[in-house]
Formats: sequence, structure tokens, C-alpha cells
Amino acid sequence: MADTSQIKALLFDVFGTVVDWRSSIIRELAAWGADKHIAADWAAMADAWRGQYQPAMQRIRSGNRGFVRLDVLHEENLIEVCHRFGLEDALGADRERLVTAWHRLDPWPDAVSGLTRLKSKYIIAPCSNGNIALITNMAKHVGLPWDVVLGAEVAQAYKPHPQAYLGSADALGLKPEECMMVAAHLDDLEAAAELGLATAYVPRPDEFGKGHGAGTPADGACTFVAPDFNKLADQLGC
Amino acid sequence: MADTSQIKALLFDVFGTVVDWRSSIIRELAAWGADKHIAADWAAMADAWRGQYQPAMQRIRSGNRGFVRLDVLHEENLIEVCHRFGLEDALGADRERLVTAWHRLDPWPDAVSGLTRLKSKYIIAPCSNGNIALITNMAKHVGLPWDVVLGAEVAQAYKPHPQAYLGSADALGLKPEECMMVAAHLDDLEAAAELGLATAYVPRPDEFGKGHGAGTPADGACTFVAPDFNKLADQLGC
Repeated sequence: MADTSQIKALLFDVFGTVVDWRSSIIRELAAWGADKHIAADWAAMADAWRGQYQPAMQRIRSGNRGFVRLDVLHEENLIEVCHRFGLEDALGADRERLVTAWHRLDPWPDAVSGLTRLKSKYIIAPCSNGNIALITNMAKHVGLPWDVVLGAEVAQAYKPHPQAYLGSADALGLKPEECMMVAAHLDDLEAAAELGLATAYVPRPDEFGKGHGAGTPADGACTFVAPDFNKLADQLGC
Repeated sequence: MADTSQIKALLFDVFGTVVDWRSSIIRELAAWGADKHIAADWAAMADAWRGQYQPAMQRIRSGNRGFVRLDVLHEENLIEVCHRFGLEDALGADRERLVTAWHRLDPWPDAVSGLTRLKSKYIIAPCSNGNIALITNMAKHVGLPWDVVLGAEVAQAYKPHPQAYLGSADALGLKPEECMMVAAHLDDLEAAAELGLATAYVPRPDEFGKGHGAGTPADGACTFVAPDFNKLADQLGC
């Protein structure tokens, strides 16, 4: 069994790991479409919107743009995707409604109960690319019991830039090896592991639609592998 | 009755308002002294340590020094105060133990129950000069149920600099008038009110020793005045 004695904080990826962004965004887009009496392939639009996520952050990671919050990137990307789907006119004054759809994402079924157990033994904090308002509103919306909101806005860097992880650990006054990154994405965990953080892989097989979510970690690549947060709590003795 | 319909977040001063820093620091110093077999006027030392707090922050507010976390200021001030009390040799390797005494402050009796009620209706966040690690560790220590940790480190400015309040509101995506500052200190509330925040005065008459805490607000200077957090929750309909 892995040595967890020095771990004091668990840092969580949020989109995909804690919340089911895709189903939630499809639902929000469809509800908006119903209100506007328009039809579209909302799943395709959700995927297209999310498809702009990495390129938009990459401009900031690479230094070609100063740091701006994810809400800003979500709005810019929404405008682009609405253009592609012929929905600019429909969008009109509804930008804020749709941008804040990302503040109203639903958790995976085990998230609230699992986080509550993990919180009994560790500091639990999002280390997400979502901005502070987004993550705080989401937590209020569904009861995610974070101790503190860390991540991109606090560190002023987007994962997987090293500063996103190191800045989050440093804000807690902790060394990287005193933190464990928990994520459904192996590239996120790989970046954290390179910096000395422990890692827990919690695959979410349905993140990108039924059966389209999970990868397979190399042997020994992750400190822990668990199918959900409650099983991770079991493994950590919470 | 004041109009609270636009208020979405309550921002709290922490030292003195949520926690009884003075009794806690005296207790921590006395426990350290007992371990080291030394005697001193621990109340006087606690007051002297706290006395260095505003001057140390003032150098940063005035722009004469870049922002550093309160843990750093607490350590520098501790060294100075130990020198004054002839305790440099005793301090030795115990700096971290004493600096983190500020992470282990006890709440006023109504704080946890009152915050829990207020949280049911509002985002509740510290807007403290304490750094993120200090505030997070303190919350874990005694169960303060913050939704998110804001304040000096997030805003990179010490109260009563306007940026400390404005940066905290902005991190939530809120306008100043959508926030209410809750504090036991009238100067803190005055600075917040000048920026458009609503204010709640919760006097703590024993903050500086029995009966040495509270001021008297001018008529109408504060949006709310309540003797504790539960009474504030009553007034806010939580």
C-alpha cells in the first residue's frame, strides 16, 4: 500500500472528475433552446464548446496572452461556437445565462458523499481551471464541501502548467509531496506527478458520453486508482 | 428594515470578529513557556505581537514593500517581540510553532452555529488579512464552514486598502453592493461602506481583554448591528 502519511491535502480536478459537465451543459443548452423555440444538436454544440477549451487556455499557457478567468474564455468560445452553429442571433442577450451554465454543473453520484468523507481527514480543495466564482457557485448549487478554492485563478496559471499545481500547494503552505492530485484525466495526473505530488486516478467512463471517458494508466503510474470517491475514501482510511 | 435583496455574499473579518485571537495566543504562548520552563507576561507579549500587526501591513499598503503573506509578517514581528521580551534564545527553533499559533485560534461561541445558518442563504467567505493557509488551517481546526477563502492573499492587498474588499467581491463575480462586510471593527466597516458594500457590525466586547473590545457606531453608519452571528442570522431571515 502506498505511503500516505505525509499527505495533508487532496487537490481535485473538477470538470469531468467531480462534475458531469457534458450532460449538464447539454441540458442547459436544450433548456435555452426550448425557451427560444430553436432546435440544434445540443450534444454536438456542448462538445464543440468544450473543444475550444484547451486551445483558448493554450494561448495563455504559452505566454501569448495574459491570464484571464475561465468565464471570459467560456464567453469568447460560446460566441465562436454560436457562429459555427448559426445561433448568433439567438444568443443575443443570453450570454451570461449560458456562460454561467458552467456554474451549475451536476456532480457524479458519489461526489458529495465521497468528498465529505475525504474532508474528515484531509484538506480538500479544487485545483481546477475554473475561476473562483464558477467553482464557488457550483459548490453552493449542489453542496460540494470544499475547504478552500484553489486552482487556476489563485495560481494565475492554467493546468497543466506547473504553476497551477505548485501555486495551489504553496497557497496551503505545503510542499508538493504533501498534496495529492485527484483526477479523471491521466495527463493532469502526469503533470502533477512530475512535480512530486501523489496522484489518485478516478476514471469517469461516461465523461464524454456513455463509455467515452476513461484511459488506462501505466502500471504504477498513479499512487491510487479508485472507481469513485467513496472507494478512494476507503483506500485512504477515511 | 434594510434592503438585503441584492446581497449575495457575506465577507467576514476574522481576527476578533470570528475568533478570539487574544485568549488563544495567550494560551499558546503560555503552553510554549511551560514547555520551555520560562515565565513571562504572556498577555503583554500577545498584545505586543498584535501591536506590530498594523505597522507591518502599513509598509505594504503604502507601497514601500511588495505583498507578502501574513505568516511572514507574523514571523518577523515575533522575532522583534521576542527580542523585546528577552526571549530570543528561548525562541530558537520554535518559530513555526508560534507563527502557526495564529492558525489555531478558537472561535467565539456563536461563530460556528451562526456561520452555518448564514451559509444556508449566502456565500460566506473570510475577507481577512490572514493568508490562505492560515485561514484554511484555522477553519479545519474548529469547523468554520467557509464556502471559499478570500481576503488579502487573493486580492494581494491588506485591509483597509480598497483592493482587499474590491478584489474579494470581484473574485466572486459580484459588485460591491452585492456583498456585505461583517466585522467587529468600525474602521473595517467604514472602508467597506465607502466602496458600496453593505455592513454588519458585530461587536466583540472582550476582544482586547474583558470589556475592551467594542466601539459605538454612529447612527445609521452600519446596515446591521447584531450582538452575535446567530442574531445576525435572525435579522437576515436565515
